[in-house]
Amino acid sequence: MTEVDPLPTFADVEAARRRLGGAVLRTPLLENARVNERLGGRLFLKAECLQRTGSFKLRGAYNFLAAMTAEQRGRGVVGWSSGNHAQGLAEAARLMGVKATIVMPADAPALKVANTRASGAEVLLYDRVKDSREEIGRGIAARTGATVVPPYDHRWILTGQGTAGLEIVEQARDAGVTLDAVAAPCSGGGLITGIALAVKGLSPGTSVHSAEPAGFDDLARSLAAGAKRSNDRLSGSICDALLAPEPGDVTFPLAKALLGPGLVATDDEALDAMELAFREFKLVLEPGGAVALAAALTGKLPVRGRAVAVVCSGGNVDHATFARALARAA
Amino acid sequence: MTEVDPLPTFADVEAARRRLGGAVLRTPLLENARVNERLGGRLFLKAECLQRTGSFKLRGAYNFLAAMTAEQRGRGVVGWSSGNHAQGLAEAARLMGVKATIVMPADAPALKVANTRASGAEVLLYDRVKDSREEIGRGIAARTGATVVPPYDHRWILTGQGTAGLEIVEQARDAGVTLDAVAAPCSGGGLITGIALAVKGLSPGTSVHSAEPAGFDDLARSLAAGAKRSNDRLSGSICDALLAPEPGDVTFPLAKALLGPGLVATDDEALDAMELAFREFKLVLEPGGAVALAAALTGKLPVRGRAVAVVCSGGNVDHATFARALARAA
Repeated sequence: MTEVDPLPTFADVEAARRRLGGAVLRTPLLENARVNERLGGRLFLKAECLQRTGSFKLRGAYNFLAAMTAEQRGRGVVGWSSGNHAQGLAEAARLMGVKATIVMPADAPALKVANTRASGAEVLLYDRVKDSREEIGRGIAARTGATVVPPYDHRWILTGQGTAGLEIVEQARDAGVTLDAVAAPCSGGGLITGIALAVKGLSPGTSVHSAEPAGFDDLARSLAAGAKRSNDRLSGSICDALLAPEPGDVTFPLAKALLGPGLVATDDEALDAMELAFREFKLVLEPGGAVALAAALTGKLPVRGRAVAVVCSGGNVDHATFARALARAA
Repeated sequence: MTEVDPLPTFADVEAARRRLGGAVLRTPLLENARVNERLGGRLFLKAECLQRTGSFKLRGAYNFLAAMTAEQRGRGVVGWSSGNHAQGLAEAARLMGVKATIVMPADAPALKVANTRASGAEVLLYDRVKDSREEIGRGIAARTGATVVPPYDHRWILTGQGTAGLEIVEQARDAGVTLDAVAAPCSGGGLITGIALAVKGLSPGTSVHSAEPAGFDDLARSLAAGAKRSNDRLSGSICDALLAPEPGDVTFPLAKALLGPGLVATDDEALDAMELAFREFKLVLEPGGAVALAAALTGKLPVRGRAVAVVCSGGNVDHATFARALARAA
């Protein structure tokens, strides 16, 4: 019951890190002298595109499965996603020997379906127009006793994602830096609220900001209004990972309590950030994974005279989209 | 005097690591469940493309400058390179406050010249046909008292590069793995001999192998013959970083003592490895940086039933070449 559960805390992020153990990669925090020179400050990239399965999603999924009872794990898990959560959940289940069923749209990219199957998950395809993936997923759960693993709106998910925030603050400290601000891409808000719990716990003076695609900035508008706002559209951005329609019931109260103003980047700005990540950082980013970086490069998140970290949250991009980013080089 | 100097040892690699301190990034050692499944073993990528300046070269250059006397550093350094060594040396000099002069071909890629200048180095352009870059460089050294920093054939350079080998063995151990083999790209042999010193010092049973482009496999042929062999051509591979004409006077004796048989990859195999690094590891590799990975993916360096690490040594690739690699996707 979300209404009566207390909101997750910093201690829950620390507990998540203990559960994750060595299952996730401590991804590097990268810096580039030329980019710093150009921006007049210090910009750090948290390279979660290098995380196993190509995005941060493994952190939350693994933490969720590790927090379940052995008896629950024995009955399996079920989830729905067309992208990074599917791959993260399937891989977490494989690592823990848990049966996973993933409901994916029949028109999902063949590679993402194949990758999810390669982790050993059973993939059920549904028709985006005629079927409800939630109904299919909840039906499986009801019949088999499997546990539904939601993509973001759950304490175990968001505190798992937050372990990346612990690493950011610690890695910046190892570089002798106290961060002025941290930003991360945002869809339903699991990553950014988990990171905010972690960052505020370790470094209360650091501001934390969500970054969203233009036209899909439900959290930025919700924060400004003080109440949930929804996106007008369900599709239409190149940032396919960041299209959740509105903030979650668990994530929004945390966002209101912890976040500064939300940042917004256009598709072209995301593509430009992908090109810079290719050229200067040798990283492959997907559009949605590049929106926080885009906010820093365009000055929406000021770097001049400051130390700022941005999460580059995923790199699961198809060849044609990446070629579009390369073509934007000056 | 190379003839009377004893060859560098494992202790020299340890000394290099102490000199480097926090100046270089401890790059991650990456693994991918799908790739392991396909190869039937465990393949680890040492992502030196993420190193500052986009290649491993900063390690050797920084170690060289740190090993010089303060008096020598005060007179500056000079080097010649059309690529990664230029950028690594210029950045090492910037970090240590040393004046650097880099002799580069007038037809070098504009971006590489600009990057070298952005680190604060003075760049002198020469005509590949009419001028000798060595003569220009040595002339500067003679006039100014600056120290020549060679690209590979020097104990301080190769033991600096070898610090990547220490990290590989330690990171594999952290993952519970004793490596059966390690391979790294090879041009003049500074990286591979430094890595061999490090790996053999920590894990004597691990075999170490050079990887070279087809047609530029001077070290592989020299190892087979037991004496130095030269390449027939000076250009003509997409692997522009790996075209040194023959093994060095310092590196070859070490290579003979420490390396197993040399590996060779074609340009197409290097492009295929770049495509896989993009798709599965979210890394940007240049062709020369991908040849050891190519050897593992093609079975020339067997992975089945084993644990193998390959160094991905650089990511300084232009957009057009990277687009060629993307276009090879199945």
